Amino acid sequence: MACLSTEEEAKPSAMRFLSLLVAFVLAAPLSAQESGTPDEADVQMLRRLYDAALENSPAYEQLRVLTEVFPGRLSGTPAYDGAAQWTLELLRQLDCDRTELQPVMVPYWERGSAESVQLLGGGTSVPLAALALGGSVPTPADGLTASVVEVHGVEALKSTDVRGKIVFFNAPMNPTFVNAGRAYGEAGAQRNRGPTEASRHGAVAVVVRSLTHALDDEPHTGSTTYLPDLPRIPAAALSTLAANRLSDALRADPTVQLKLTINSTWHPDAPSANVIGEIRGSEFPEQVILVGGHLDSWDISPGAHDDGTGCIQSIEVLRLLKAVGYQPRFTIRCVLFANEENGLRGALEYARVAGEKKEHHALALETDSGGYRPTGFNLGNAAGDAHLKAARWKSLFEPYGVFVFQAGRGGADVGPLMAKGNTVAGLMPDSQQYFDVHHTRADSIDKVHRREFELGAAAMAALVYLVDRHGL
Amino acid sequence: MACLSTEEEAKPSAMRFLSLLVAFVLAAPLSAQESGTPDEADVQMLRRLYDAALENSPAYEQLRVLTEVFPGRLSGTPAYDGAAQWTLELLRQLDCDRTELQPVMVPYWERGSAESVQLLGGGTSVPLAALALGGSVPTPADGLTASVVEVHGVEALKSTDVRGKIVFFNAPMNPTFVNAGRAYGEAGAQRNRGPTEASRHGAVAVVVRSLTHALDDEPHTGSTTYLPDLPRIPAAALSTLAANRLSDALRADPTVQLKLTINSTWHPDAPSANVIGEIRGSEFPEQVILVGGHLDSWDISPGAHDDGTGCIQSIEVLRLLKAVGYQPRFTIRCVLFANEENGLRGALEYARVAGEKKEHHALALETDSGGYRPTGFNLGNAAGDAHLKAARWKSLFEPYGVFVFQAGRGGADVGPLMAKGNTVAGLMPDSQQYFDVHHTRADSIDKVHRREFELGAAAMAALVYLVDRHGL
Repeated sequence: MACLSTEEEAKPSAMRFLSLLVAFVLAAPLSAQESGTPDEADVQMLRRLYDAALENSPAYEQLRVLTEVFPGRLSGTPAYDGAAQWTLELLRQLDCDRTELQPVMVPYWERGSAESVQLLGGGTSVPLAALALGGSVPTPADGLTASVVEVHGVEALKSTDVRGKIVFFNAPMNPTFVNAGRAYGEAGAQRNRGPTEASRHGAVAVVVRSLTHALDDEPHTGSTTYLPDLPRIPAAALSTLAANRLSDALRADPTVQLKLTINSTWHPDAPSANVIGEIRGSEFPEQVILVGGHLDSWDISPGAHDDGTGCIQSIEVLRLLKAVGYQPRFTIRCVLFANEENGLRGALEYARVAGEKKEHHALALETDSGGYRPTGFNLGNAAGDAHLKAARWKSLFEPYGVFVFQAGRGGADVGPLMAKGNTVAGLMPDSQQYFDVHHTRADSIDKVHRREFELGAAAMAALVYLVDRHGL
Repeated sequence: MACLSTEEEAKPSAMRFLSLLVAFVLAAPLSAQESGTPDEADVQMLRRLYDAALENSPAYEQLRVLTEVFPGRLSGTPAYDGAAQWTLELLRQLDCDRTELQPVMVPYWERGSAESVQLLGGGTSVPLAALALGGSVPTPADGLTASVVEVHGVEALKSTDVRGKIVFFNAPMNPTFVNAGRAYGEAGAQRNRGPTEASRHGAVAVVVRSLTHALDDEPHTGSTTYLPDLPRIPAAALSTLAANRLSDALRADPTVQLKLTINSTWHPDAPSANVIGEIRGSEFPEQVILVGGHLDSWDISPGAHDDGTGCIQSIEVLRLLKAVGYQPRFTIRCVLFANEENGLRGALEYARVAGEKKEHHALALETDSGGYRPTGFNLGNAAGDAHLKAARWKSLFEPYGVFVFQAGRGGADVGPLMAKGNTVAGLMPDSQQYFDVHHTRADSIDKVHRREFELGAAAMAALVYLVDRHGL
């Protein structure tokens, strides 16, 4: 590109007209206070929040510390505890009205010495890039060897004899779904339910194709769920290239075997904590607008996009509101949840305590889909109209490239709050790159683009501000 | 993220309702054929085009060849000629109805042996990461040494004595503009007009801060424009880190000097060519829908995002239309323009010949803003309503994450066509990462995300299809 663009920020006039029209139509049956029809004060405030996010923000360097000093912060580990203390200190330095480590007991699973998956055939043994799934039971110390049967999805177990064998789930993510999260959800069943379903049909272990569109040698871990009435069998993820190699080998010789060695340990539950900091509301302190992410990461990962970005962006929302001098009417609370990856105990405990205290959440906004360019929000409430109400602010967000307001359920950590009748939301960053690094060693800060990450924090702060000013 | 998403593709019902409402409102004064109100056939066709783009497309591997076999394909070079022959062959293999190398004479500038910028002060000489600007005249063979005056922008020259000095333009790109292209446009004046304006005020050379938000040691080249009545003075870009170092050094000691050595040569104009391939229209063969990018790149760059992606995506549009079996009514023409970076001769010659032949372009769609996630299109025509007409198709594009239809001028290569009254458009990929690599050695294929690139080609094919079926 050689020509110099002098366009104004994207704000197509027809679209703007439309959005105002929509705002009018949707706002009609509501009271003036609730209508939230954007005014000039809103336009100015969003500009100030974005300016503060994009100019000299400390957030990206904070993310560097979180991911480089506290990588592998799985629940129960010293890395998690260190990250909790350090983020609590960040919140204290923001001069929060209240900070807290909210105690919760969490599962504590340890990978132990490195797993291995060997492909045995024709007298040779070839290592395949693999990671034990989170929560997998160990194999015998000297490994587990069996022949392999390849299937595409959990349903295929009904028509395949897998007794005594290692089941190889090899369904790829569907490349034609534009939203990569949808493809992850569809293919994810084989990781989440695959091992327990394979066990039900008599298999002795499972290997599963990594959940990614990328074709490389990076295995992607993630949790698997055992059912109490079925034998727990060992399970590992193969890199997509390793999965292709295994599939090719099976086609050439169906008698090839795999040798799995997994050295994991389930420890007793361990003490942990959610990290909380809040600005007390000036008018409705008992009403909470929550903004949060999860502080734990997989043991092998720096946890940058999953979910260091969501945590630091949530802290940044408090900083931005203070930086622009906004005094919230509601209590704005940042919550960094413990144990999202393998238990959700932090989210459950937070919702339990909130219920006990009869706290009402005007909005619980979670960010746990990566630190990429924000495209919109999903919102959910009991009436099913939260996304329509938020869409009244569409014209305010469009100049910042935020277009989507759709029905949804926020994310895993605000699920228990939604179940109790609170309104929830989730930031929707662009999904294309997330599953390249999700649950891998490669989820490091060099994969996070500073400006995209900052734009996410600004979008979150903007939504929090609008809900605080207008209600939802 | 641990929860499994089962959301359908993003298609918020309120937004959809809105878009249909808009389509209705905007379509009212138009004829039925022109209204282009989306029907089920359009929905199905877009799905097929996207499926074909996202599943087993050869385009990304073609981009690898273009960038790895023909890097540095500046106008006049053998690398350009090789790329032209190779892309012509790609078009032939698509069984185009017509292919052509359209001859054009182009400027031929050569960098020569590597430039150097040395910071002299306190008895030491420190090298600064730099690249001569494209088109810069050389320094004397043994270099040019002078003291330095730092300014922020071209306007500052009016109030600063720069006689006999090297002007250091150090205005950074504005981080608060959400659209990085807008920040590039604003700061770009100091690269484009800076050297000639500095010459007007008596300076002997120019160094300019690289046009990027990134803080690193990668210098960004780009063209500069000399005016015929002013002395041509040498000019180089400094990496942003080098610019900061120089600024720090000047603050500490205003007497530090720079020594520039640039070994460039202006050769006589050289023969070159635009690369053209087309599918002949079945109903209106004399009406053209053009899709294109520019095949030349800077001499030091693999030219992946700028503009290998636009070229291969344009070829891919023809492949996609054929893959889904669509028989266009208009002639669909892929044009890979020569000499966008330092002359625009390819675009000017194409428009001249088209005028001679009295060809009408129903649309000339250019892609020259990188191969990132597509967000929308800018469109321009004489009446200024092309973007409103295209917005009637908004509901078709929303499920694919394409939201923006704004007024614009397409891009540099379709500018001469717009000047002749044709309708033009430009794909608008997300702008955040583009200027990290733009005009650098780092603009290589590893920076291009396969799916984002494929989504761009699909969006282009969708717009071409809709204009072909409904008119614009």
